[in-house]
Amino acid sequence: MRTALLAAATALALTLPAAAQDEPKGAPAPSEIVAGAPKADWVAIAAEDLLVMTLAPDADGKPRQVVIQLMPAPFSQGWVHNIRLFARAKWYDGISVNRVQDNYVTQWGDPNYDNPEATGKPKPLPEGLKVMSEADYTASNVDELAADLSFPLMQKPPGESSGWTVYSPSMGKGDAAKRHLRNSSGDDPYARFNLFYRGWPVASADMTSIWPTHCYGMVGVGRNYSPDTGSGAELYTVIGHAPRHLDRNIALVGRVIEGMEHLSSLPRGKGALGFYAADEAGKRTPILTVRVASDLPAAEQPKFEYLSTESGSFATYAEAIANRRDPFFIVPAGGADICNIRVPVRRAAEGG
Amino acid sequence: MRTALLAAATALALTLPAAAQDEPKGAPAPSEIVAGAPKADWVAIAAEDLLVMTLAPDADGKPRQVVIQLMPAPFSQGWVHNIRLFARAKWYDGISVNRVQDNYVTQWGDPNYDNPEATGKPKPLPEGLKVMSEADYTASNVDELAADLSFPLMQKPPGESSGWTVYSPSMGKGDAAKRHLRNSSGDDPYARFNLFYRGWPVASADMTSIWPTHCYGMVGVGRNYSPDTGSGAELYTVIGHAPRHLDRNIALVGRVIEGMEHLSSLPRGKGALGFYAADEAGKRTPILTVRVASDLPAAEQPKFEYLSTESGSFATYAEAIANRRDPFFIVPAGGADICNIRVPVRRAAEGG
Repeated sequence: MRTALLAAATALALTLPAAAQDEPKGAPAPSEIVAGAPKADWVAIAAEDLLVMTLAPDADGKPRQVVIQLMPAPFSQGWVHNIRLFARAKWYDGISVNRVQDNYVTQWGDPNYDNPEATGKPKPLPEGLKVMSEADYTASNVDELAADLSFPLMQKPPGESSGWTVYSPSMGKGDAAKRHLRNSSGDDPYARFNLFYRGWPVASADMTSIWPTHCYGMVGVGRNYSPDTGSGAELYTVIGHAPRHLDRNIALVGRVIEGMEHLSSLPRGKGALGFYAADEAGKRTPILTVRVASDLPAAEQPKFEYLSTESGSFATYAEAIANRRDPFFIVPAGGADICNIRVPVRRAAEGG
Repeated sequence: MRTALLAAATALALTLPAAAQDEPKGAPAPSEIVAGAPKADWVAIAAEDLLVMTLAPDADGKPRQVVIQLMPAPFSQGWVHNIRLFARAKWYDGISVNRVQDNYVTQWGDPNYDNPEATGKPKPLPEGLKVMSEADYTASNVDELAADLSFPLMQKPPGESSGWTVYSPSMGKGDAAKRHLRNSSGDDPYARFNLFYRGWPVASADMTSIWPTHCYGMVGVGRNYSPDTGSGAELYTVIGHAPRHLDRNIALVGRVIEGMEHLSSLPRGKGALGFYAADEAGKRTPILTVRVASDLPAAEQPKFEYLSTESGSFATYAEAIANRRDPFFIVPAGGADICNIRVPVRRAAEGG
């Protein structure tokens, strides 16, 4: 029994507490804070901003569906336009996952691109694609965005005092917030400022421009060498430690909000860069369809909502991630990487 | 052809450059710096510090082997003792992977722990296990360790100047290095200092104690609630973004240096915390054997070496990761997360 008890607790050991008879009392876990957030703190995601990607069923015949949330303005809107266009042209139907590189990315596109074993010709691209510039990897209208920026964890300036302070939602709006940001630090090795914009993690060097960050599950656009910026025909998602060195070097266009495991648990490719090698073509996962959710019949449209990153609930959640006080933890970190403060997204209740 | 060319380059887009006819010239990629490092910069890993874990063959009948490098003194040596003891008692033989939680951990141990569907009783633990204390999550003898600490990227103190400076190997030894560290910054949201000790990423708040960091592929010891610290019977590896909030809360004992894809690409569990649910018991991957490499016949002992983190090659490699100048990149990051400066480990040549 001792071993069983040990194991019962070991099961709980590495993440959020679940119900357990022997669980010590403690402060709420981040998941509990999210579960208790008032309905008013949740923001519905428009069906126009959701892509539903249906993969071929798995080896057991079970369906595999991935839902991607597209990024809002002002970020990457040219590529987002292209992605909706590809989806509406049904261009993505019949492509496949061609690359899975461990601790890096899963990438999907036309398997007849760059494939010595190709059995067909590459698909022609649809008409109407926008050609984006490298300047579009970042957004420069920070003054206009300030009202929707939030920064749930702020480290006091060096020398002033140590430790982290909880973000106050009242500081999240307008110029006051911006002034505060300019004088605070949410820095990490990649950016002086790491903050949130309307539910998305973003970074900045000096608050004159802002860009989205390559966190786990984010979706980006494969491209050629500079000055090419990619069309959206080739997409990837991050399946490992955040490759933040790609920030400002590739367009990010969205994130996987459901079904991530269908992309992260695929067999790794043995070819260069994790592409499936010539003798592994059978490992490519077929993508049957990709649809913009708003184009689906109303009854089939998935409904999602995210926890407002400007809400008090999100500030409390982020602070709890930075300073875990739930029973398992003995030493709170005192901080958190922007990519570990994952914005909560959930299925919305029917009619909600 | 244009599309094929586009795709050929897209294939290269997200990582290290491979040979390509149209590839622009540029500075060496980190992988090229590693490939060019002199033999003298590589350090052999003792067979006593390698675990060879053989999983059941995959669905295609292909063998699956995982090699784990155990952590050197002064870190976690009580748990490392236990792990060798478990392996030599053949206690691990016949256990399984019971938990795969997306963007978090893959965990293995006795499937009859905490399992309502258990078909057998938990295995009794072997004699001779050490019981470790929470104080053992960190090492306090920093003065003794200083000669083997290195810090390849240093950010100048705020206000002095911006940007990163290349580590000089001559600063990597002894008190000079330590003094320099105390006055520099390798900070991120989790620690004031992030550095390397004999090939391992470690962190410190104030250089009075040091601890290993929960990077991708690191191996840790599942435990019960405090003050339990775990025995080593349950182990996990990180398969997502570094959960650095676990630093100083759980013992880290090693890292996967080969075969990581056999653990990271397993199907995620649908039960709480990513455990395989009652109706998924068939997804548990059996672990056939775990052996200390030095106990294997000489011809079967795998030989590995790592790039010395105190070498000039490593400093050059780390600097190139922080400031990518190889052809794909347009904006170098100017810094790098300690978990993205992965210590190069490779198979050693026979007789090398």
